[in-house]
Amino acid sequence: MYNLNITPSIGQTDALRHININSIASWFEAGRTPIFKIFNPTLDLTYKKWNLNIIHSEFNYLEHIYFGHDVEIRSYIVKIGKTSITVYQEAWQNNKLCANGNIILVYYDFIRENSKIIPEEIRLKLKEQLMDIEEIELKNKKEMKNK
Amino acid sequence: MYNLNITPSIGQTDALRHININSIASWFEAGRTPIFKIFNPTLDLTYKKWNLNIIHSEFNYLEHIYFGHDVEIRSYIVKIGKTSITVYQEAWQNNKLCANGNIILVYYDFIRENSKIIPEEIRLKLKEQLMDIEEIELKNKKEMKNK
Amino acid sequence: MYNLNITPSIGQTDALRHININSIASWFEAGRTPIFKIFNPTLDLTYKKWNLNIIHSEFNYLEHIYFGHDVEIRSYIVKIGKTSITVYQEAWQNNKLCANGNIILVYYDFIRENSKIIPEEIRLKLKEQLMDIEEIELKNKKEMKNK
Amino acid sequence: MYNLNITPSIGQTDALRHININSIASWFEAGRTPIFKIFNPTLDLTYKKWNLNIIHSEFNYLEHIYFGHDVEIRSYIVKIGKTSITVYQEAWQNNKLCANGNIILVYYDFIRENSKIIPEEIRLKLKEQLMDIEEIELKNKKEMKNK
Repeated sequence: MYNLNITPSIGQTDALRHININSIASWFEAGRTPIFKIFNPTLDLTYKKWNLNIIHSEFNYLEHIYFGHDVEIRSYIVKIGKTSITVYQEAWQNNKLCANGNIILVYYDFIRENSKIIPEEIRLKLKEQLMDIEEIELKNKKEMKNK
Repeated sequence: MYNLNITPSIGQTDALRHININSIASWFEAGRTPIFKIFNPTLDLTYKKWNLNIIHSEFNYLEHIYFGHDVEIRSYIVKIGKTSITVYQEAWQNNKLCANGNIILVYYDFIRENSKIIPEEIRLKLKEQLMDIEEIELKNKKEMKNK
Repeated sequence: MYNLNITPSIGQTDALRHININSIASWFEAGRTPIFKIFNPTLDLTYKKWNLNIIHSEFNYLEHIYFGHDVEIRSYIVKIGKTSITVYQEAWQNNKLCANGNIILVYYDFIRENSKIIPEEIRLKLKEQLMDIEEIELKNKKEMKNK
Repeated sequence: MYNLNITPSIGQTDALRHININSIASWFEAGRTPIFKIFNPTLDLTYKKWNLNIIHSEFNYLEHIYFGHDVEIRSYIVKIGKTSITVYQEAWQNNKLCANGNIILVYYDFIRENSKIIPEEIRLKLKEQLMDIEEIELKNKKEMKNK
């Protein structure tokens, strides 16, 4: 699991006085940086070096998130395919799971514009982080019970 | 169908020199405004008047979107439930379907914090706009063939 | 003068139920695109072709801007220096001047990382658009009186 | 001085492969939260409780900011007026001062829509934090020399 702490800003709220859903998406994006590093240790953002292309994202908005309290973004690798991975992410505030979602990232050649097979050495590093979604849900249930 | 024309700005690109996925989400949000108006004609953003709460969104990123060319956002009501609707949205650039997605909006009381049954008069107006996803896909195929 | 019409989205408001100041800055950025085109007609965003670097921006927030009404962004070239230009911009909503500001753009070589003298052919095109700030203010006064 | 650590996300870069200037503005906004707390300890975002209105902001972009390295936002109260304060802010990355700027916040009644005199008890708390701009610049020079 990868953790990122976020201090919400007023601009990330909207007129309904909660955090706007687009801000959550951008926090999830920031939370994926350590996973990008597995694929591209220098995080060099050139077409030669960058190698991940997002093809799908989905989000569930479970509880409103508020300004004035920090938010924890948790990111898990939950699936490793031949050419893609699925990252499951959560936003927690005040011990509540407020939003979650899945993002599919394809291992990608930005010059040739096609997907590539994930090489073995990257795959091994990803496997160290692989976690089962049921396992995560169980862990969450325990955590929420204890609070 | 509801149309919105967008002129991308540089800040909406990212270092991969395409439009960042979060910008697409915010364009889809702007594209839903005419649907918000069906529920709340004055668009008054108070807890008393605002009545839509997003519980789910998902996006498919089919083609990169570029700075320098306008983008058309198309929004369709594709499902009307008891307490919620599904809005299907597309982003088109240079006659190509570049992204699409579904958003689920719940008819919601922001003071009591619970969902409500969509009243008949709103339901009638929504039905006028209801369109079948297969119908939309067929229309898209024709359109892309002609270009 | 260059005009851009903006349809605000809910995500561009903040909890104070006005448009957040960062959204205004991003609209001004979108409004500068026709000026970028004078310097770089294809708008090609590579280090070889892109040639403008922002070194300063300032904004005055005169009136709150609201969701639900379109906003007009007006952009003027008000100063042409040896290596830089000043762009003055305004945001209008419901016939009111709601925000204005100045941005200084330096003609810049992104490979060598230094400023360059604006070439004569670009300077001529810029001069066609040059407008005096007092002239703009006079025009605004007339316009607001007539509404 | 108030400090905020930021981990940039890819969506905060733009096609020129630096952090986009609008992202810097939004980081500065997040950095002002401890100052908002002096005026409004609960950070309650209602018209009754919120009491700060931005009337001016300006930014100098001194060095490009890059993805992949954390950014430190420093916020100082540099001027306390009768009805307003000036906050000076800086963005530091890799021991370099990359951007700075001033924001003017007016003590404001959002219901009556007018400015108010800052009460004595708030003024005292602000004074504890007041710092001279020359003092800050001297501190910065020393810091950059030592690195």
